[in-house]
Amino acid sequence: MNTSTNVKSDIEIAQQAEMKAITQIANDLDIKTEELEPYGHYKAKLSLDILKRLETKQDGKVILVTAISPTPAGEGKSTVTVGLGQAFNKLGKKAIVAMREPSLGPTMGIKGGATGGGYSQVLPMEDINLHFTGDLHAITTANNALAALLDNHIHQGNQLNIDARRVVWKRVVDLNDRALRNVIVGLGGPIQGVPREDGFDITVASEIMAIFCLATDVQDLKKRLARIVVAYNYDKKPVTVGDLGVEGALTLLLKEAIKPNLVQTLEHTPAIIHGGPFANIAHGCNSVIATKMAAKLGEYVITEAGFGADLGAEKFLNIKARTSQIKPEAVVIVSTIRALKMHGGVPKNNLKEENVEALNKGMENLQKHIETIQAFGLPFVVAVNRFITDTNEEIDAIIKWCEKNNFPVSLSEVWEKGGEGGLDLASKLISEIEKGENNFAPLYDLSDSIENKIRTIATKVYGAAGVEFSTKAKNQMAAFEGEGWGNLPICMAKTQYSFSDNPALLGRPRDFTITIRELKPSIGAGFIVALTGDVMTMPGLPKQPAALNMDVDADGKAQGLF
Amino acid sequence: MNTSTNVKSDIEIAQQAEMKAITQIANDLDIKTEELEPYGHYKAKLSLDILKRLETKQDGKVILVTAISPTPAGEGKSTVTVGLGQAFNKLGKKAIVAMREPSLGPTMGIKGGATGGGYSQVLPMEDINLHFTGDLHAITTANNALAALLDNHIHQGNQLNIDARRVVWKRVVDLNDRALRNVIVGLGGPIQGVPREDGFDITVASEIMAIFCLATDVQDLKKRLARIVVAYNYDKKPVTVGDLGVEGALTLLLKEAIKPNLVQTLEHTPAIIHGGPFANIAHGCNSVIATKMAAKLGEYVITEAGFGADLGAEKFLNIKARTSQIKPEAVVIVSTIRALKMHGGVPKNNLKEENVEALNKGMENLQKHIETIQAFGLPFVVAVNRFITDTNEEIDAIIKWCEKNNFPVSLSEVWEKGGEGGLDLASKLISEIEKGENNFAPLYDLSDSIENKIRTIATKVYGAAGVEFSTKAKNQMAAFEGEGWGNLPICMAKTQYSFSDNPALLGRPRDFTITIRELKPSIGAGFIVALTGDVMTMPGLPKQPAALNMDVDADGKAQGLF
Repeated sequence: MNTSTNVKSDIEIAQQAEMKAITQIANDLDIKTEELEPYGHYKAKLSLDILKRLETKQDGKVILVTAISPTPAGEGKSTVTVGLGQAFNKLGKKAIVAMREPSLGPTMGIKGGATGGGYSQVLPMEDINLHFTGDLHAITTANNALAALLDNHIHQGNQLNIDARRVVWKRVVDLNDRALRNVIVGLGGPIQGVPREDGFDITVASEIMAIFCLATDVQDLKKRLARIVVAYNYDKKPVTVGDLGVEGALTLLLKEAIKPNLVQTLEHTPAIIHGGPFANIAHGCNSVIATKMAAKLGEYVITEAGFGADLGAEKFLNIKARTSQIKPEAVVIVSTIRALKMHGGVPKNNLKEENVEALNKGMENLQKHIETIQAFGLPFVVAVNRFITDTNEEIDAIIKWCEKNNFPVSLSEVWEKGGEGGLDLASKLISEIEKGENNFAPLYDLSDSIENKIRTIATKVYGAAGVEFSTKAKNQMAAFEGEGWGNLPICMAKTQYSFSDNPALLGRPRDFTITIRELKPSIGAGFIVALTGDVMTMPGLPKQPAALNMDVDADGKAQGLF
Repeated sequence: MNTSTNVKSDIEIAQQAEMKAITQIANDLDIKTEELEPYGHYKAKLSLDILKRLETKQDGKVILVTAISPTPAGEGKSTVTVGLGQAFNKLGKKAIVAMREPSLGPTMGIKGGATGGGYSQVLPMEDINLHFTGDLHAITTANNALAALLDNHIHQGNQLNIDARRVVWKRVVDLNDRALRNVIVGLGGPIQGVPREDGFDITVASEIMAIFCLATDVQDLKKRLARIVVAYNYDKKPVTVGDLGVEGALTLLLKEAIKPNLVQTLEHTPAIIHGGPFANIAHGCNSVIATKMAAKLGEYVITEAGFGADLGAEKFLNIKARTSQIKPEAVVIVSTIRALKMHGGVPKNNLKEENVEALNKGMENLQKHIETIQAFGLPFVVAVNRFITDTNEEIDAIIKWCEKNNFPVSLSEVWEKGGEGGLDLASKLISEIEKGENNFAPLYDLSDSIENKIRTIATKVYGAAGVEFSTKAKNQMAAFEGEGWGNLPICMAKTQYSFSDNPALLGRPRDFTITIRELKPSIGAGFIVALTGDVMTMPGLPKQPAALNMDVDADGKAQGLF
């Protein structure tokens, strides 16, 4: 968050904004009345019929917004995404923003919200940050219904011969709740079920969230759900949702949620917000259906992928782009002076002080992310997301560094100025796209071995010297290839703070080794998750959770979201 | 459910129905545009401003629908409620139906839905039976956010000195999941939290659901949430949500859900569906806000309370009516030939066979429920909810029995004929009301001791010979009165199948003793829960869950709800 004592807070700006009726936003996109389901006056779900109606229409240009390795507060990637959409609209282009839905876990915990900031926010920010249209709750429910049906199957005779010690399907809540990481369920005697070790993940880490975001339509959703591996039987063979026969019920629970949500930005730019997997433990991109629909409805789609280019962008480009045939035209790499100084060695509490030397040293982090985007063959522009505490000397330093290296760069002031503050960035993106130098290709072939795919990501994207596989991971690679899962892409689970699997190694670490602790088959999603280091699939709450400041005032207005 | 091979299923009738736009239903009730928030085209949330605008308007007449002790399949109380609303409208009265929201647990488990049946259903039945407008998910989230914040408090220094062995706040899911009844959380070492015994209830058993249904506005909601007792400290003193300082955050999570939901019946009678606590383990009535709003908007409100008159109606009359000042004008006691035969000794699988003798014997169950309603001083009509398998001889028998006893009775055919099938019932209710013989009063005074209030319910409503209190319950009664909780009403938790605490004792058991195993302070809801027998607060799934038959067809239509 950009911070100062004399400016309005995000929630103040949002609550003072005048929104257009969502029917008007939809009308401007030529969406038909019967294709729009209003949820209140400022949110709506969009019928999947839109994709059918516009099937032969040419897609708009997709611009992917990524970032350098972030600080815990985030670098304003969502803010730049929203601001850039607004800037394109100011340039007379029909632009649509496509973003992820926030999880309540971080909102109640640390972040207080995830809908952009300043004059580049999506609205109504309170609704979007709380329950929105209920998509995450539908996913939570489908996930946990599956868990209940699975445990019930074991309890009621276990016809599928499931080994209760080898159940791999976890329950979820859309909250930060460390006490649920490791639990024992089924206690209390024979009529209370079968005792076993279990655990809860946060909903955004669920395979159902990943499936939701990669499915192309309702029938594809059902097929993917049926493929989920929930357990292994006593012969160590996988047991799937299809074996349990409940993919129909799970699809039924998701049939409304799968429709993308339409909202607007502060400047009335349409925004489609749908799905929200984390990028460190999942693939980190909004739904394929949302991005495709935005591309059918607009000339430009501005979409983001979570955390740094080593995580969200890598997965967007190697997984989402490949399975969905969505080819990005250009990439924005969001950088902040603040985070670059941290990568240059400045402690967290001193980031507001000018320090050009540390900034220049930290630039190596940006450079590595640029190299990644270049490796994918994509044009890009570096966006310096201006914070109030940045000094002119610091801004000069990063601009000059980019110019010296021939990296296109733009100072983004969308937080302070809205779309106006992103006009230069938008123009530079258009000229990069018009150069026609897009040679996009994924970094690995699906036919490579699991091991080689992981090595490619680790060396080419992270800059690792090598990869070590635990014995467990080695056995799993052999077993997965034996099951016929060898041709799937890889979804790396890695800390967002470092290129390495050690969150303390900032900047651009070299000569490090990535350790693959364990693999997880996400056959419904269609990828193999490779877990490095201690990546948490269930965050905890901090000592002073954001929830302590939340309230509803006498007029029914939300307080404490930001 | 009434069953036959040659009639349409509930979901077929529902999917073939032509609904009016919800804006039109609202318009017919003189609801202003800004007071309506559409959720799709056929559902809407109603602003609480309606209550302010109509504050001085006279309330419509509230009719409470209750039933005899039910069979596991239910006696069609919702069907009669919906049909009766339709019948009143056919008589030219402006009637509104006020009902509870279904829980996904029973829907996925046994019932497949809970929106009436035949030609007396609320629509859109698929949406209402699935996620509806997300109210139950908001309650689940608030409940579990509180649990996470509580465990986090203990983990992060435990300033309130909470005894982790005496945490009484449980987590919830809106599913039937027996494996979660008894769990251990916080395992995995010091950074994963504090290990302790825990358990999950179904959402509809949560105190937050009860609070949600008894709160009169947002500020009252917040005050009630603050009073929830979540644990005891090492001095055995209660620790509340207010002590944790998170009532604002919980209110924020509920601020949209607290708005009642407007839908329509098959005959376009308005229906307000809001809140849904179970009646065996909670108080079993839709929200006070919904009933009040319906009374402001209509001339007649038809509302139901869960299970038999010993449970839902007793709680409606002793708890909800008292705290909300909602005085019912008359009561409908729904009876079925089928259930009365069961109370007369017929085994479950033979209920379709004619058996007048067993029917006459089972009438004692109905008689006891009638006595309860008479004890409350309320006029009533017995509604015989006709099933296809009922024979004319059986119907004659029950009608004659009522006439012999001077009990007003009506044959309800609303399942088969819609409102038309309830015209006689509606007319008889109007004439009972017009007699002006309503002497309604709760059965006990709040100033009675906890013990005496429980004895009053057990003897006057259940017909018990006496009440036994466990040592634990005795200690709790003393402790609760010491805490100043002695003046609260009682919410009995008892099996719905019997007047006693033994579900096998059908008919009208006599000379039995009710055992109070344990008490639970629901200080936010404003009552003391008295647990009898083995009342489950988390149901399990059956061997063949309804979920196995659910699906979404190629046109996106739901299948397997009924």
